[in-house]
Amino acid sequence: MVNVGILGTGIFAKDAHLPALTTVDAKVVAAFNRTSSKAEDFATHAKQSGHEVTVEPTFDALLKNPKVDVVDMLLPVQHNYANLKLALDAGKPVSFEKPIAASLDEAKKVVELTDASPIPVIVLEQYVYHKGVAKVQELISKIGKPVSFIFQGTGAYNPSNKYAATAWRLNPEHVGGYLSDGGVHQVTVVTECLQSKVAQVNAYTTQLRETSGDVDVLSASFKFENGVFGTFTYGSTFGAIKKTNSLQIFGTEGSIIYDWSPGSPDTVTLQVGPDSNNMGEPQVFTVEESKHFSVDSEFKNFFEAVEKKDKSLVVSNPRKAFHQFAVIVACVESSKKDGQQVKVAQLD
Amino acid sequence: MVNVGILGTGIFAKDAHLPALTTVDAKVVAAFNRTSSKAEDFATHAKQSGHEVTVEPTFDALLKNPKVDVVDMLLPVQHNYANLKLALDAGKPVSFEKPIAASLDEAKKVVELTDASPIPVIVLEQYVYHKGVAKVQELISKIGKPVSFIFQGTGAYNPSNKYAATAWRLNPEHVGGYLSDGGVHQVTVVTECLQSKVAQVNAYTTQLRETSGDVDVLSASFKFENGVFGTFTYGSTFGAIKKTNSLQIFGTEGSIIYDWSPGSPDTVTLQVGPDSNNMGEPQVFTVEESKHFSVDSEFKNFFEAVEKKDKSLVVSNPRKAFHQFAVIVACVESSKKDGQQVKVAQLD
Repeated sequence: MVNVGILGTGIFAKDAHLPALTTVDAKVVAAFNRTSSKAEDFATHAKQSGHEVTVEPTFDALLKNPKVDVVDMLLPVQHNYANLKLALDAGKPVSFEKPIAASLDEAKKVVELTDASPIPVIVLEQYVYHKGVAKVQELISKIGKPVSFIFQGTGAYNPSNKYAATAWRLNPEHVGGYLSDGGVHQVTVVTECLQSKVAQVNAYTTQLRETSGDVDVLSASFKFENGVFGTFTYGSTFGAIKKTNSLQIFGTEGSIIYDWSPGSPDTVTLQVGPDSNNMGEPQVFTVEESKHFSVDSEFKNFFEAVEKKDKSLVVSNPRKAFHQFAVIVACVESSKKDGQQVKVAQLD
Repeated sequence: MVNVGILGTGIFAKDAHLPALTTVDAKVVAAFNRTSSKAEDFATHAKQSGHEVTVEPTFDALLKNPKVDVVDMLLPVQHNYANLKLALDAGKPVSFEKPIAASLDEAKKVVELTDASPIPVIVLEQYVYHKGVAKVQELISKIGKPVSFIFQGTGAYNPSNKYAATAWRLNPEHVGGYLSDGGVHQVTVVTECLQSKVAQVNAYTTQLRETSGDVDVLSASFKFENGVFGTFTYGSTFGAIKKTNSLQIFGTEGSIIYDWSPGSPDTVTLQVGPDSNNMGEPQVFTVEESKHFSVDSEFKNFFEAVEKKDKSLVVSNPRKAFHQFAVIVACVESSKKDGQQVKVAQLD
């Protein structure tokens, strides 16, 4: 049993973290929010699922609460670094929501901070834990050498999106706004499935909706360190179109298509064979993700690292999250240079 | 009735041009091929469809044959310019197969030559005449401002491809080999549908099959003169995968998906609406292309221009074909620079 103190009790804390924590042998024992009424509301809500939450007057008070084993932070992204530092200084393991930071400089500081500390820290990027991604990783050796890919994350603008309407998203301080907020998820799928880092990008962006606060459409070419190249399209603010989330990987001996578009089960389709005269039938694997946006899988991994006091067990670690963010930062920089090539910032 | 002299009686002359010409009020009256037995075989074959073909001993003899109204050239692409010049000097209108030339310099010479001549010349690029393309052009004003696109032309390597096995393709003199040969078709779909020119590209290529003779996979970003940007993936030499030909266009007020993958009818799907709360149902238009690779439509257009002595009526003109080829040349150049941006050569 892990006792959790929550910093930032917004929509995602209530709608995703709380239900997920309820399923993974954890108790929420304390909460702090800048607007205390929101913390009170969260505590009331948490009580219904069996949590006893003390609303703390400050983050410092939450850190000093002896019941709190770990801190779970859900903050406007520009506040990640400062609060992570406070928590680590207080000796508390920390989970915090992606993207890792609002700028590349802050992202580097997060990595330096966590590299220097023995305390487990997880950046909550759910796609690292998606079963569809794991299935692709399991199958990819069957398609020979991966050569190229097409990633597509496209959809129509949703004016009722409750996440988009939050103030820190409407007036983003984080690079690329909408693009780094949502885009790190998409980058994660591609980098996790191909098991390599993006070396360089060329990208174009534009802003279609005022409420996006910044650019909201991205179209890019990626070249990976392992030589694989492909294209990456991300935008959910278009006019009418069926929502599509898919990654196609083309190899020398076959192909994999991972499709997690809403409205049908998530599938991974494997087809094996060297050419059109020798093609096996497509094999379709259906995967069912957790109902909690995989937040439960994230916490399971985090709590294991916390209990074993072994930060190396954290899969979605800050170095990985740095790369996911750095790819989007490189895309935004490339688009400002009218699509000129930009190398993705790498850590030592 | 137009009387046609054929220069180059290879597979495509027999399998596509002859049947198409048989349907469009034309007679093949003469033919020349470097290997005369192939011309004899073509003449025998043509007789079965009602053509009376004189096999000429030289191209010069074909040009001097008073029965010949127009010359239809199907040559290894590096021979296009020299033979086009001979035909125009002899006063004959010319149709010739894409791509326009083997190099950008030669392509420029073709445009200079045809710009200076009043005689109609058509570059046979069938996608200019495809009904699916025309349908997209008809509908595109309904999706607001086009913003981005994804073009995908992917498939498994076909070792039985009779066209790929010809000597000039196995040892290509044309830029990018397989890529400029097949790729101009794909570029045509995108440029015709978006009704704009590609301004700049970033591209990666690789060669998967020895028989391709040169690079055979292309993955690129395009930015158009009208500001639209998107990605372009072309490769038919992968391991096992279902063949896919599609162009998705994302607009501010809706979307268009043109799908001409084999195995099902070609469709153009239009969906209109400003956002996910206001989406019309997708409207699916089925289009049926000519059985002759649209060669019949190409000749109809060409013969109209010939009969009216008005070269401006030719839709698939050398300037258009120059651009289709220049886009691929820019991609090949970009890939040689590890994906650095290259401006597409433009005509004055």
